[in-house]
Amino acid sequence: MESPRRPRLTPAIADVRRHVRTLLTEAGPARGGGLVLVGLSGGADSLALAAATAFEAPRAGLRAGAVIVDHALQAGSAGVAAAAAGQARELGLDPVLVLRVTVDHGTDAGGPEASARTARYAAFDQARRETGASHILLGHTLDDQAETVLLGLARGSGPTSLQGMKPVGGPILRPLLGIRRARTRQFCVDAGLHPWQDPHNDDPRFQRVRVRQTVLPVLERELGPGVAEALVRTAGQLREDSSALDDLARGLSEQLSEPLSDSADGAGIRLDASRLETNPPAVRQRIIRFSVEREFGVSLERVHTLAVLRLVTDWHGQKPLDLPGVRVIRQDGWLILTAPGHAPSKGPSRSHGTPRH
Amino acid sequence: MESPRRPRLTPAIADVRRHVRTLLTEAGPARGGGLVLVGLSGGADSLALAAATAFEAPRAGLRAGAVIVDHALQAGSAGVAAAAAGQARELGLDPVLVLRVTVDHGTDAGGPEASARTARYAAFDQARRETGASHILLGHTLDDQAETVLLGLARGSGPTSLQGMKPVGGPILRPLLGIRRARTRQFCVDAGLHPWQDPHNDDPRFQRVRVRQTVLPVLERELGPGVAEALVRTAGQLREDSSALDDLARGLSEQLSEPLSDSADGAGIRLDASRLETNPPAVRQRIIRFSVEREFGVSLERVHTLAVLRLVTDWHGQKPLDLPGVRVIRQDGWLILTAPGHAPSKGPSRSHGTPRH
Repeated sequence: MESPRRPRLTPAIADVRRHVRTLLTEAGPARGGGLVLVGLSGGADSLALAAATAFEAPRAGLRAGAVIVDHALQAGSAGVAAAAAGQARELGLDPVLVLRVTVDHGTDAGGPEASARTARYAAFDQARRETGASHILLGHTLDDQAETVLLGLARGSGPTSLQGMKPVGGPILRPLLGIRRARTRQFCVDAGLHPWQDPHNDDPRFQRVRVRQTVLPVLERELGPGVAEALVRTAGQLREDSSALDDLARGLSEQLSEPLSDSADGAGIRLDASRLETNPPAVRQRIIRFSVEREFGVSLERVHTLAVLRLVTDWHGQKPLDLPGVRVIRQDGWLILTAPGHAPSKGPSRSHGTPRH
Repeated sequence: MESPRRPRLTPAIADVRRHVRTLLTEAGPARGGGLVLVGLSGGADSLALAAATAFEAPRAGLRAGAVIVDHALQAGSAGVAAAAAGQARELGLDPVLVLRVTVDHGTDAGGPEASARTARYAAFDQARRETGASHILLGHTLDDQAETVLLGLARGSGPTSLQGMKPVGGPILRPLLGIRRARTRQFCVDAGLHPWQDPHNDDPRFQRVRVRQTVLPVLERELGPGVAEALVRTAGQLREDSSALDDLARGLSEQLSEPLSDSADGAGIRLDASRLETNPPAVRQRIIRFSVEREFGVSLERVHTLAVLRLVTDWHGQKPLDLPGVRVIRQDGWLILTAPGHAPSKGPSRSHGTPRH
């Protein structure tokens, strides 16, 4: 009998390893003994990722460990975490951390799933600090990505909602975004690994579970196989489009914003209405959004951004516009943006405020 | 009993009329007796549109007629067309044209649905020429738009596939894109109109019918009501984004393309690789696509555009790239695009080629 540490090289094993190798060599840390950690739940996706990383990391001149987050949401979760830690050590990962987190049920607007996610990513940060690891590898697959895109569509919050997860997002690497979930299950079968079945993954109270179990299968049946891949391909192109417009508009936002001298209006910024108007709607709209974000730390909704732009494109002497966190007036060809009690702007070209990604 | 010509003003009737009024006054022809035609199938959507247009057009200083296209695809189609023509006259529309078309089954790559569509739009053009009408009003609803976006997602051809139909596209006006299909059915009930039920609309051999009958209802059940609206809202924002990038890239494509003098390579154009590289991927990719389209009349697929761009961003002395209809070489910092037997370019700044919309 073969040991799980040295499985036969099947197509599934080769495929998963290749994806891990590509991301480790293209986006991973510098060679020379640096450490990466695999975020391991014990499920098929992250278990296949852990096994493939244990194999590939040394070949890329890296060390690989694991971090297991115990969300303490289900009875027996400590046992599940301990079993996953055992599997990680068995695969040769070192160090192996188990971090128990507290999921805040009450406060996160996105519900318990969002709270668990927030706690999990905080634990990943802590694990990096404790171990000096440069990156965390997560086992999200193409199926997860397609589900994310569909959930974004259901929210309808525009291009942003369709963008999906990034393969490289700061210290987070997602090598399996191009691989179907079934492939990681096959990996585990081929490698003699025994993944844990999270009962949450089958609980139809979660919207994501309903997308996985009902929505995607119906789409694939009625529109043809390959819908998941099509969704993901589209998401990739939209990410590219949106990022080009975001960068363009951020640059213009800094060029067009002038600080107000501290006046009776309170401090703030002004934007030249006619220069704003020369830009296409997609750019104008982003300039307003980014300018307000940078100056006042407020994220305007699209309906508010569009209201501000009517002062530019449909000016007929409207009244001042009082939006959440910012007041907008048009005066002598300028849009004047102020907020009560807001500290005076130090100049238009510094960049504090929301990070890009 | 009320006459169908003067229905009681119900919410559904007021809503449909308001949408027609808005588009007629904002995007329609100049006032003063101009003519618009409603494309009428006899189904609920176009029948409600016909009735609302018969009411609103005179109030907007316009005349309204109807054009009925008999696709001759089903037994009895001439009778259906004649009945729709009768309803149109009953509503006071004048002139009423019935055009019988031949749907070419063999040649259209998109199958019979695409062939019927091509024949229908050609008939609309003919109707405009025959009557001097400035616009054709079509009864596509928010449901049709959501279906179009979902079908585009299934194809996965990126931002373009997600864009959906335009409310104003040349001479075509679609006043009902913001209204649910159920609203137009209610209009017909309220107005005492009897729409025709097209059996094709229930035939699950058509992908669009499966989207309507199965996919959208599952999405609305699992992800919450409002999914159709969310899809359409997203499509609108993507249309805005994509059009901004298209315009930007078209301008750059004309700036960056230089005609080749007729040489051994054959005629064509060249693009400065380092100037191309300063643009973000979404723009670079469009510059290549538009340049090739304008010069050679060839639409490159994304995979080909990306191959061309590797000569820019990942140059290591690759061989010439032979793509369908165009050959690309990198030489002395230039991308040189030629096609065998291609007529010499007259200069980089003229614009023939594919229209924008």
